[in-house]
Parts: sequence; C-alpha cells; structure tokens
Amino acid sequence: MNAHPHDQADTSVDQHAELILDLLTPTLGTLGSEQVPLADALGRVTAAPVLSPVDLPLFRNSQMDGFAVHAEDLASIPATLPIVGEVAARPGTPARLLPGTAVRIMTGAVVPDGANTVVPVEDTSVTLFTDAETVTIGRARAVGEYVRNRGSDAHAGDTLLPAGIRLGSRHLAVLAAAGITDIEVKRRLRVAVITTGAELIAPGEHALPGQVYDANGIALVAAIISAGAVVATTHRVVDDPEAMLVALEWAASTADLIVTSGGISMGDHEVVREVLGPLGAHVGHIAMQPGGPQATGEFQGVPVLGFPGNPVSTQISFEVFLAPILRALAGLPAAARHRRALSAALRSVPGKRQFLRGRIRADGRVEVVAGPGSHLVAGLAASDVLLDVPAHVIELNEGDLVETVDL
Amino acid sequence: MNAHPHDQADTSVDQHAELILDLLTPTLGTLGSEQVPLADALGRVTAAPVLSPVDLPLFRNSQMDGFAVHAEDLASIPATLPIVGEVAARPGTPARLLPGTAVRIMTGAVVPDGANTVVPVEDTSVTLFTDAETVTIGRARAVGEYVRNRGSDAHAGDTLLPAGIRLGSRHLAVLAAAGITDIEVKRRLRVAVITTGAELIAPGEHALPGQVYDANGIALVAAIISAGAVVATTHRVVDDPEAMLVALEWAASTADLIVTSGGISMGDHEVVREVLGPLGAHVGHIAMQPGGPQATGEFQGVPVLGFPGNPVSTQISFEVFLAPILRALAGLPAAARHRRALSAALRSVPGKRQFLRGRIRADGRVEVVAGPGSHLVAGLAASDVLLDVPAHVIELNEGDLVETVDL
Repeated sequence: MNAHPHDQADTSVDQHAELILDLLTPTLGTLGSEQVPLADALGRVTAAPVLSPVDLPLFRNSQMDGFAVHAEDLASIPATLPIVGEVAARPGTPARLLPGTAVRIMTGAVVPDGANTVVPVEDTSVTLFTDAETVTIGRARAVGEYVRNRGSDAHAGDTLLPAGIRLGSRHLAVLAAAGITDIEVKRRLRVAVITTGAELIAPGEHALPGQVYDANGIALVAAIISAGAVVATTHRVVDDPEAMLVALEWAASTADLIVTSGGISMGDHEVVREVLGPLGAHVGHIAMQPGGPQATGEFQGVPVLGFPGNPVSTQISFEVFLAPILRALAGLPAAARHRRALSAALRSVPGKRQFLRGRIRADGRVEVVAGPGSHLVAGLAASDVLLDVPAHVIELNEGDLVETVDL
Repeated sequence: MNAHPHDQADTSVDQHAELILDLLTPTLGTLGSEQVPLADALGRVTAAPVLSPVDLPLFRNSQMDGFAVHAEDLASIPATLPIVGEVAARPGTPARLLPGTAVRIMTGAVVPDGANTVVPVEDTSVTLFTDAETVTIGRARAVGEYVRNRGSDAHAGDTLLPAGIRLGSRHLAVLAAAGITDIEVKRRLRVAVITTGAELIAPGEHALPGQVYDANGIALVAAIISAGAVVATTHRVVDDPEAMLVALEWAASTADLIVTSGGISMGDHEVVREVLGPLGAHVGHIAMQPGGPQATGEFQGVPVLGFPGNPVSTQISFEVFLAPILRALAGLPAAARHRRALSAALRSVPGKRQFLRGRIRADGRVEVVAGPGSHLVAGLAASDVLLDVPAHVIELNEGDLVETVDL
C-alpha cells in the first residue's frame, strides 16, 4: 500500500482520541441524572451514594427453624422447657418470652422480646403431653446464637451502594430489601446516527448496479446500545445537503451526540464535509488504517463525530474512538486487551497504526483474518479481536507479541 | 456453625447441578428458533449458519479516490491520458472505458468495464484545457491494484456466520451488507418467577413488625435478564396453597421454566413444598452454604426449580445452578473464575461447599465481605466475587489460593 500524501500532517490516534474527549467533555459533564423505578434500573449507573432508609434486617429474627429461649435456661444440659407457642415468618409481634419457657420459631421470624438465643431444631426433642408440649435441649447455646440482630447487615443511614455502580441483580436486591422503589441514576448518553452515501439503500430493497446495502446504520445502532448508550434517532441521507441539514437539525434537537458515517473524503459529493465544513468542523486524516479520514465538529451546540463510510472503517472508528468513552460512562469495563503471539509473520504500513482483524486460535496465538481492506465486512464479522499494531512497526515475525483488543 | 443433621444424605453441588441439567435438557432441546428482524437481533444467537445471498462486494469497485485506467496504458511513465468522465459512488452503470483514456473515480464507485486498475489521486496531476482535461500519471500500477473485486469478501453461498453466534454489531453489519433483513435465532428461555413467603411485602409499602420487603422478585428478574433469558411472568404468593396453584398454572401456561423462592424449609407453612411435594417434587438438602435447601420438580410438564427464600441463598442458588445454563444458552461467556490469594485466614464448615462473598483488593488479594449469613443482602451487594470454598476445606491461611467466581 502506498502512504497517504498528508502523512506529515496526520494526527495520531491518541491525539485524535484526546480531541474527541475534549469535544465531548462538556456534554458528559452536564448529562445529569434521572429517577427510575427499580424495575427499570438494571444496568444503569448510580448517580449518588444510596443510603439505607432502614436497618437491615428490619427486626431481630431467627436464622434457623428451632426454639427461641433464654440462654440462661440452658445453664444445665439437657434442659427441658414448656413450649408456649409458635412464631412463624409472618406479620405480627410475638408476646414477650418469659424465663423458663420456649417458643417454636421459624427461620426469618421475629425473635420475641425476652428470648436471646435460638436452638436449632436438630438439637432438640419434643415431648407431647395431652394438653401441652415440652422441648428438651441437648446442647448449650451462647447469648445471641442463631439470632440475626436488627441492623446487623446495614444500619439506617449506611451507604448501601456508592455512586458509579452499574446496577446488577445483587444491587437491586439490597435496594428492594431496604424498601427503596426508585433510584437516581446517571442519564444515558443519547446518540443520533446519520449514515450518508448516494450509493446506500436499505437491506431488503433491490440493489441496482452501483448501490450497496447500508451496513453502517445497523452496526452503529448496535454498537451504541452494546456500549450502554441510547440511540436517539437514525437517518440515512444520500448526498443532498438540504436533506443532511434536516437530519442534523432533527438529531441536534434530540441527541447529546451525533455520529455520521461517510461524506468526509476528498471527492466532490461529500455531504458531511459540505454541510459541516462551513460551520467550522475539522475534517482531517488520522495516522491509522482503516479509519484514516475523521471529522469532528458541532451542530447547533451538539458535538458531531464524522466517521469514514467504509463499513469496516466506521466500525473500527467507533471501537477506537467512541466505545471507550461510552463504556466508561455506562459503568462497563473497557474492552479487554491482551498480548498474544502471532501465528504468522505480518507486514504493516509504516507511519500508520493498523487495526487488523484477527481470531484467537486453539493454541492461544492470534491469526489475521482476511486482508486489511476496509470493505471486508465478512472478515470483520469472522473476527474475535483487533490486532493493534503501532505506527512505527513495519513487520512482525511469527511468535512476536502483538496487542489484541476483544471485539 | 453446626453441621446440618442430614449431612450424610446431602447431595453435592455438582450432583444437584447435574440433576437440574437433566431436568432442563428436554426443554432446552426443544426450544426451537424464531425469525426476527435485524433491528431486534442484537444479542440473539444464530440458530443456523447464515449463507450469503450475494457476492460481497456486490460489484467491482474502487478502493481509492483517483483514476480508473487500463494498466497497459502505464507501460511508459509518466503517462498522460484524456479524462473522459467521472464515476461517483452512486447508482448507475458507467460506460466501458476505452484504451488510452482515464475516468475519474471515487472510493466505492463501480470500476467501469475495460478499466483494470485504479491510480490514487495523489499519484496524478490534472491539466485543464479549454474544453478538455488530461491526467498525468507518475507511477505505474499492476493490474488490479486498488480494485475491490466482486466477491472478494464473500461469495454468494459462503457462510457469513455459523450457528451459535451471539450477534454483535459486526455480525449485524455483514448481514445488512448482504441485504439480509431477518434472521433465524434461537428462541430465548422464558422463565417465570414466583416468590413466596407470608412475611413478604412489596418495596414502597409500609412494613409492619414481622414483614420484610421482597428482594427476591427483583433480584431473580434482573438475574434472568442478565443471563440472557426472558422473564415470562412474576408472582408473589404469601402462604396460601390455592394462590400458589393459581400462580403455578399461570406460570406453566407461559413459561419454559418456573423458578420459586422460599417455601421449602421444614416449617409448617411451606407453600412450595406443600403444593409441589404431592406432585412428585423433590425437596432436599445440598451440601452447600448458603443455599442448602433446594427443590426440583415439574408442574404441568414445566420444570420447576425451588430456591430457598433467604435473599442471599436465592441469589447464590441462581448463580450456582441456573446462571451457567442460561448464559450458555444465550451465547454469553461463563462467569470468570480465577485463583486468588486470600487477604486473611478463614474457616469453613466441613462437609459443605461454601460460597463466601468477597471483594478484590488493590493488591489483587481477595477479602471476605461480611459474614456467611444468608440474610446479608448488603454484604452481597458490596461484593465483586464469590469465594468457592470446597466442601472438604476446614480452614485456609492468609495467602492461600482460593477460587473466585466473578459476580
């Protein structure tokens, strides 16, 4: 492959990533939060620490099925005590337990005032008389055994969850247990997608010569959702600047960020460049492959990222520049990176950071899938990882280590 | 802690997991598939290999902005050729290119018949005459350079995706690129949730003495969704066998699997045991902590898993017994397991496999969070991992390795 003519002026991937972060920082900083019911909170991120409104457990209760007694009555073993009743795990306040008596108690049931220990049923034997029962206890118990004290899990005012937690089932469980019904979570970033290209048609239509199916629309939507953000609106624009303006206005009215694909090359019918260039957008070239052409700008105060239109370029641009920001915002872990041995030698383009498509082999080595061409959508779909080959690398030998990024 | 009286007869965790897999296998084997539009297919699992209906790319097109020419015309360099037109990336079939002429071409545009190579714009200079233009090419090109051949990514009939792929953005991209609008995916398992307990109330209600908020309902729903399955219906049943029957009937009519919490202890008001026991359910004890009591059965042909009612027991039962099955079905990776050094010594209950709650410290060691009590929902929420301590272990020292399971 030939070097790009603007190599001297090319921005590095890291510089461009920083530029994008700077562009988005005001938006990210003012996203704010919203109140959602617990049932809608799975996967959302806590906006503030959540304090417990109650003690957990709410009341002193039994850890076992057995008998609630006064520990003092077990001073000499075996001890036989009359059974004066039963406390089940159900609403109600049991009567105070008098010394020298026992009450049958179920797991989770209120331990009666007066009682200070629970003897598990397996350490007891019950004798039934005509009109009464006694329990004989064969093992002494210390005060408090098998008793779950009120507040022993959390006290009212304790922090149940810190801010910044991505809510999973165990987090929702403790909120529900504390009687909480709604929770303040960070608002998700709303992203608008505009794909451009005179050659694009929707899957399902009949492709005439020169037409291609729009893969970027669905890929960007899926990538945005996978990265924990929300799709605000999607548009497909051919090469009409008027239509592009309408799409941008619609997008800017509903989204926090606009992502476009295509329309930023050097050609004559480049609608993103044509519409956003005069508004101050920067259309430049990054020292990377694929994904060289990149644009950044704003439309009516909403940041715009312009990705190149080749489907592989679009998707890799998203993974490299936007996914890390969206994932961090959504409390998702960054894509995993590993150093792996190459299954075969490879050559890379000097001066460009290459993101090759690869697959992990059974022996743990990584092999390159398909070529570097930015049109190889099937090759990308068959890949598990990107190989991140630094700009200074010209060739690597079989067995050399290369950094991979999980897809 | 005391040993459970039925230790001799306790089933191991692995035996019980196998029993559950046997119980669910007929259901899993007959789940079948369904056709969904691409827009609804993110995260679904391909039910069959997907073959390409078309060649990709659909037509021979240019990889660069530049000039399409006959490579033979570049035999002597520099070569100057008249520019006879322009091909943009838009619908239409360009005229055949005659030898000795060049046509301006954009990335992605149809390469005209006759042309067999593309010269990038940066290797050319254009001269404008009054009524014509010529291009002077400073570098020879081999046949086929910068030309993307039809079918060079995939041929019609090639497998674009194998069966069993969990669909991410790059998979949807290649399907869309091939013009595919709908895809056959595995049906997701529909799980019904029935929480039981006379003490349960919904979060938001006022808790009387003896009442606790139902944490299991929301925790099970969230865990089911997180594991890639679907919640068919949810019910909260106090301790009325009639109400339990109604809930089970509703659940069986709509779900592939019913999960219950609570109602399987030795107490008198154990509604799951009471209703399902006479129908042949097995209510037993597993050599694990928490989560000892476990039930398995069927209701009107639908498998039922009965988890214990303590919230921590319920959640850990789900993680240990059901999450691995659901995740595998949904194409999700199993929860990550690591061996980590303990930050402090711990004692475990002999004869029981313990799942302690833990947190990874900055130094990479794992520390136990809160106690082993199955009521400690705040402790579980504060944990990142479970420590999987084998049944034969009685104590471990600081620095000993223990297996952890990511939550």
